[in-house]
Amino acid sequence: MKPLRIGLIGYGFMGRTHSNAYRKVNNFFQLEHQCVLQAVCARDAAKVKAFAENWGYQSIETDWRKLIAREDIDAIDICTPNNSHAEIAIAAAKAGKMILCEKPLSMNGPEGRKMVAAVEKAKVPNIVWYNYRRVPAVTLAKQLIDEGRLGRIFHYRAKFLQDWTISPELPQGGAGLWRLDAKAAGSGVTGDLLAHCIDTAIWLNGGFEKVNAMTETFIKERKHTLTGKVEKVGIDDACAFLARFQNGSLATFESTRYARGHKALYTFEINGENASIFWDLHDLHRLQYFDYRDQSIVRGWRNIHVSDGDQPYMKHWWVPGLQIGYEHSFVHQVADFLKGLETGQPAGPTFREALETQFVCDAVLKSAKSQKWEKVAKAR
Amino acid sequence: MKPLRIGLIGYGFMGRTHSNAYRKVNNFFQLEHQCVLQAVCARDAAKVKAFAENWGYQSIETDWRKLIAREDIDAIDICTPNNSHAEIAIAAAKAGKMILCEKPLSMNGPEGRKMVAAVEKAKVPNIVWYNYRRVPAVTLAKQLIDEGRLGRIFHYRAKFLQDWTISPELPQGGAGLWRLDAKAAGSGVTGDLLAHCIDTAIWLNGGFEKVNAMTETFIKERKHTLTGKVEKVGIDDACAFLARFQNGSLATFESTRYARGHKALYTFEINGENASIFWDLHDLHRLQYFDYRDQSIVRGWRNIHVSDGDQPYMKHWWVPGLQIGYEHSFVHQVADFLKGLETGQPAGPTFREALETQFVCDAVLKSAKSQKWEKVAKAR
Amino acid sequence: MKPLRIGLIGYGFMGRTHSNAYRKVNNFFQLEHQCVLQAVCARDAAKVKAFAENWGYQSIETDWRKLIAREDIDAIDICTPNNSHAEIAIAAAKAGKMILCEKPLSMNGPEGRKMVAAVEKAKVPNIVWYNYRRVPAVTLAKQLIDEGRLGRIFHYRAKFLQDWTISPELPQGGAGLWRLDAKAAGSGVTGDLLAHCIDTAIWLNGGFEKVNAMTETFIKERKHTLTGKVEKVGIDDACAFLARFQNGSLATFESTRYARGHKALYTFEINGENASIFWDLHDLHRLQYFDYRDQSIVRGWRNIHVSDGDQPYMKHWWVPGLQIGYEHSFVHQVADFLKGLETGQPAGPTFREALETQFVCDAVLKSAKSQKWEKVAKAR
Amino acid sequence: MKPLRIGLIGYGFMGRTHSNAYRKVNNFFQLEHQCVLQAVCARDAAKVKAFAENWGYQSIETDWRKLIAREDIDAIDICTPNNSHAEIAIAAAKAGKMILCEKPLSMNGPEGRKMVAAVEKAKVPNIVWYNYRRVPAVTLAKQLIDEGRLGRIFHYRAKFLQDWTISPELPQGGAGLWRLDAKAAGSGVTGDLLAHCIDTAIWLNGGFEKVNAMTETFIKERKHTLTGKVEKVGIDDACAFLARFQNGSLATFESTRYARGHKALYTFEINGENASIFWDLHDLHRLQYFDYRDQSIVRGWRNIHVSDGDQPYMKHWWVPGLQIGYEHSFVHQVADFLKGLETGQPAGPTFREALETQFVCDAVLKSAKSQKWEKVAKAR
Repeated sequence: MKPLRIGLIGYGFMGRTHSNAYRKVNNFFQLEHQCVLQAVCARDAAKVKAFAENWGYQSIETDWRKLIAREDIDAIDICTPNNSHAEIAIAAAKAGKMILCEKPLSMNGPEGRKMVAAVEKAKVPNIVWYNYRRVPAVTLAKQLIDEGRLGRIFHYRAKFLQDWTISPELPQGGAGLWRLDAKAAGSGVTGDLLAHCIDTAIWLNGGFEKVNAMTETFIKERKHTLTGKVEKVGIDDACAFLARFQNGSLATFESTRYARGHKALYTFEINGENASIFWDLHDLHRLQYFDYRDQSIVRGWRNIHVSDGDQPYMKHWWVPGLQIGYEHSFVHQVADFLKGLETGQPAGPTFREALETQFVCDAVLKSAKSQKWEKVAKAR
Repeated sequence: MKPLRIGLIGYGFMGRTHSNAYRKVNNFFQLEHQCVLQAVCARDAAKVKAFAENWGYQSIETDWRKLIAREDIDAIDICTPNNSHAEIAIAAAKAGKMILCEKPLSMNGPEGRKMVAAVEKAKVPNIVWYNYRRVPAVTLAKQLIDEGRLGRIFHYRAKFLQDWTISPELPQGGAGLWRLDAKAAGSGVTGDLLAHCIDTAIWLNGGFEKVNAMTETFIKERKHTLTGKVEKVGIDDACAFLARFQNGSLATFESTRYARGHKALYTFEINGENASIFWDLHDLHRLQYFDYRDQSIVRGWRNIHVSDGDQPYMKHWWVPGLQIGYEHSFVHQVADFLKGLETGQPAGPTFREALETQFVCDAVLKSAKSQKWEKVAKAR
Repeated sequence: MKPLRIGLIGYGFMGRTHSNAYRKVNNFFQLEHQCVLQAVCARDAAKVKAFAENWGYQSIETDWRKLIAREDIDAIDICTPNNSHAEIAIAAAKAGKMILCEKPLSMNGPEGRKMVAAVEKAKVPNIVWYNYRRVPAVTLAKQLIDEGRLGRIFHYRAKFLQDWTISPELPQGGAGLWRLDAKAAGSGVTGDLLAHCIDTAIWLNGGFEKVNAMTETFIKERKHTLTGKVEKVGIDDACAFLARFQNGSLATFESTRYARGHKALYTFEINGENASIFWDLHDLHRLQYFDYRDQSIVRGWRNIHVSDGDQPYMKHWWVPGLQIGYEHSFVHQVADFLKGLETGQPAGPTFREALETQFVCDAVLKSAKSQKWEKVAKAR
Repeated sequence: MKPLRIGLIGYGFMGRTHSNAYRKVNNFFQLEHQCVLQAVCARDAAKVKAFAENWGYQSIETDWRKLIAREDIDAIDICTPNNSHAEIAIAAAKAGKMILCEKPLSMNGPEGRKMVAAVEKAKVPNIVWYNYRRVPAVTLAKQLIDEGRLGRIFHYRAKFLQDWTISPELPQGGAGLWRLDAKAAGSGVTGDLLAHCIDTAIWLNGGFEKVNAMTETFIKERKHTLTGKVEKVGIDDACAFLARFQNGSLATFESTRYARGHKALYTFEINGENASIFWDLHDLHRLQYFDYRDQSIVRGWRNIHVSDGDQPYMKHWWVPGLQIGYEHSFVHQVADFLKGLETGQPAGPTFREALETQFVCDAVLKSAKSQKWEKVAKAR
């Protein structure tokens, strides 16, 4: 087996999900490459050392430029806040490293376009961690759509509802809370949550044509952890938008962190002339499927427990009826990335594919300001 | 249209459901007969008068024998406590009246056999109010089974769980509470709730071979409303039993009034080699159906919203998606009874058919005492 | 009891639901007034006669002006297509009749304003049949909100999804299909389905400030039943809109008749800082309620089976656990209308209250054309 | 950190779940011991070598006696078919090894008693892999019960339904199919599936008093993989039993591999005077909880998404709303076993505790033959 020596930058929530994926993938998938936890990098030496020991990384760095310069690293995994993705990725590309970058790709479309140029010029394998594509039920949805079961598509709707920022006491900024700081995150729910919904939607339903959005910041000021002062909140707490797709379908999208009762309710539904599909992250191992061609008296939404060997990815895990969870979507992404290296058919979303999501987010945020419909710029 | 002049005996909960059914049936079903609320009978003259006014009965009686003797009555509807069914029904049969008798048919099998003999000798149309057969989702289950979709049957399981008698302060006996008084009710949950489960099971799965039961009375003494004294409780608060059907399938049945959280959770499930069916009274307008012959990757329990015109009874009501409720099962029963008069194909369960349930109940109660398997006596 | 002599105009789907309500209400509610089915009116004499016989109307008319002129009629019930509501209602008001008008009130806001003026000038009791307010679970939602349990409201979202017009073979116009004919219906899903969602939303969440909508007509031409020719379809097949309420909450609304798998999926959800509520017409007897103040380890959405005597309207029906259905919302509306006559506190929505919904619909349709945010005109 | 050197015997389905647990536990839990995959043992040298390479075991053995004799092994993990548990465990105990034994403990109670004697004489830490105790929702159920929230317990009911052996073409015996061979498995669903239900029930509801069972073998003969001949099937395909617990509650248990539509539907429900709990393996990350002390109008089953940091085990994983799966229950068991070594409070079920389940299974199988109630022998 060929080693694939990983250099991970950042050790937060995503650093953990990726490390777990690298450790597990070769136990469950037959692949040419073997992931090696070569190095992890972050500014705080003590913390990064503890992380390395916990996860079995063989070395540490505190300067990401040094990590990129190392010859014993094959792939750079970027898990830092959004505002550093571009700089790191462009440098890594120049150093000839493969890149696995956390989502969203960039702070905005133009910045993302530079990242795409960098990886394409360097011809390095690249991927963005839109992990929900690889929840088996979501992958099954893609398969059913690709088989043409739905017919002409009329509607797409997606939501990503959370409730963890309702308290005005919650500060912004700093470790774990950079998602509330516009400088680090670029935007609020749009880049954090809607980006997931948009990536899935493009994958399942094709390109966006135009959008019409509204955003709101319910809590206008929060204490900033870094400055210790009460500062204006710059992110969008909630965002909803109407959309039209290139295939003629109509869509609604909504995300908020103020929907009491929902921890991480990412749902999507797609209605075609012949069939419809619904999925919900809170029960991620299930897919709801309605097929109008079923005999009328026994027609109903089928509640599919996606845990059988002939359903996507599931033959690698346990036995029918035994569910996998959130973390497995990352294992699948690594497996597909490695399979892409073998076959030369890169697994998506590549930087170029993920750039589309960036331009949709840009149009959404622009529309929220302009209060008008905004066309989505072409990423390709 | 021919009038069908009803004489109702008893005005409790069932008196209301039946009266409502008689009033509605001709608005929704095209039938030769027109129900006429001719008379209602009960011992308390003031109360029966108020009931008659409320529901539009044209006259009252306080002695059921007088009601039966009246020439302007075509059908007697028996809604009294269980211990008076036999006497009234036998008298009504002798008087040549059609009979619609509340369930359970009788206090026990031998008593029921006399009632069957009486109606068959008199050749009067007769039916027992096992209304759940005519919830559209249940009727659809019957249709699917009759079409042979399930294949060989392996398992049947039914439950009827309630929680309204948990408080030891609840008295026994008297209006509304005669179900807790063994003298009036004969048994507790066995005759009241399991009788429903058994009737449905016989209808869907054929005859019982033998049963093995346990019963329990959790609250041993309760104040009796009629005597004012604390008296021993004679009914079964809970009953569970194993069963074997004549078709080789295995079954479990359970009923209790001590299942906190369940108001009237009557559920049944039947597992065949090719397909399975599940139903739940708390969502009575839905049927769950699983068909193994569906393509494997999209196989799942179908959640069928039984509200379309091609599903049983539903063309008589509203439009797809708009649910009907509990009371409609009684309307359907009247409609079918009247249709049976037209066609000469009597709607079931007739007294003879309902007698089977009585013998199962007898075997269940006997087994609970003998602590052994008990054969079910033949009703036919 | 005082008689309330009803004159019904129109005998379609709504004519049936209203007739059923008038026939049942006095059996289940103690009221001063007794509904009397005095007359039914429609142009086709044979059909209206059959309808009258079926439902027990004592007389018929074929000209609604004659009906309104009759002295033995107390209340006019308007069940005709939308484009005749105004003319009939204004004439009935002038004749001093009470009016129960099907929803939507009118073809548009200005027309509705004339109707409001007419009933207010004539001082006749008036109500519009937005029946979903009186599904017990929805009424319970209102009660919980009025008690202040939700706290500050952040989000409201509602959908009304159907799938019955997907086939291009379906014609427009004529009996039962006038909802597809813009001349008779005024609009498509906006006036038919979103009007329901908007009425509930105003009731639960207060007034709208502005809206931003998109509409689509998927099938551009359909055969017209009346002309026999293929004609352009003038209605909106689908409509989605963003909204801002006066209380600062954000909202999304969507309706379509092209959502495969949904017969009549009217759902709404409201998220407050302390609690959230969800309801679904397909299981109308349930309310989902989440209360953040529950102890954290056992916090979850409560699935409330709204069938207990202390929940709205339910003491009038059966026993806990036994569900009622769609038709009962109409019975409740009649009961409340009659109670309003007794108490002098009119039941809503009155014409004036229902006018608000009309102005929201106007703004929605205007926005769909202007492609901009549109303010909602004040109805009061 | 202290190493805990594991010697695993058997590499089937359970060999994989345990290996995964040993590899992951130290990444997610702070513990004194570090699991070391020291050796794996099975008869087929080529296969065991491949397994070792896949999972990172440092060495292999083909004779379990040699494994037990090795000084560099601290703990023996027994993943072989049921008929070899006793011999291996007794030898391992004599060799002073800690033992982690797959369930069920033994072929029957008397055999299990010898195993208990062996580990207790040798004073070696021991545990049985009844992993479902450590699904967070199940552990939460235990916590709620221990807090006394349910009050007096009236009912317990459990089912474990599968459908994978319905085809008569499926052979018995050999790798992966030894569960159909009575010689290797001891029994069918009773030892395989009901043992899980019984273990959970004892843990949650205390000891059994007596049972009354029926069993069935639907497919009487199957080809045997090892002999190549059609042979009589000796296992129970289905088993249902009534039970009474020492705390006075009534119970029903059922398991089958012939319930079409259910892959691994392990459910249990417990009804107390104040509250009830329901859990379902097909959605293992949720717990259903009903509390009668909730205010009546908003009382309902709470659907708890067990994914918050204050719920059992969940602080070790991801963030609220993101579910874990089946495999994590094994990680938790290793974590608790290791924590037990630290604290001297052994994690359960120990061999002695698991012996109780064995005696219940014995009584169940005896009752199925005797057709009578059978007392459950005391394990302590």
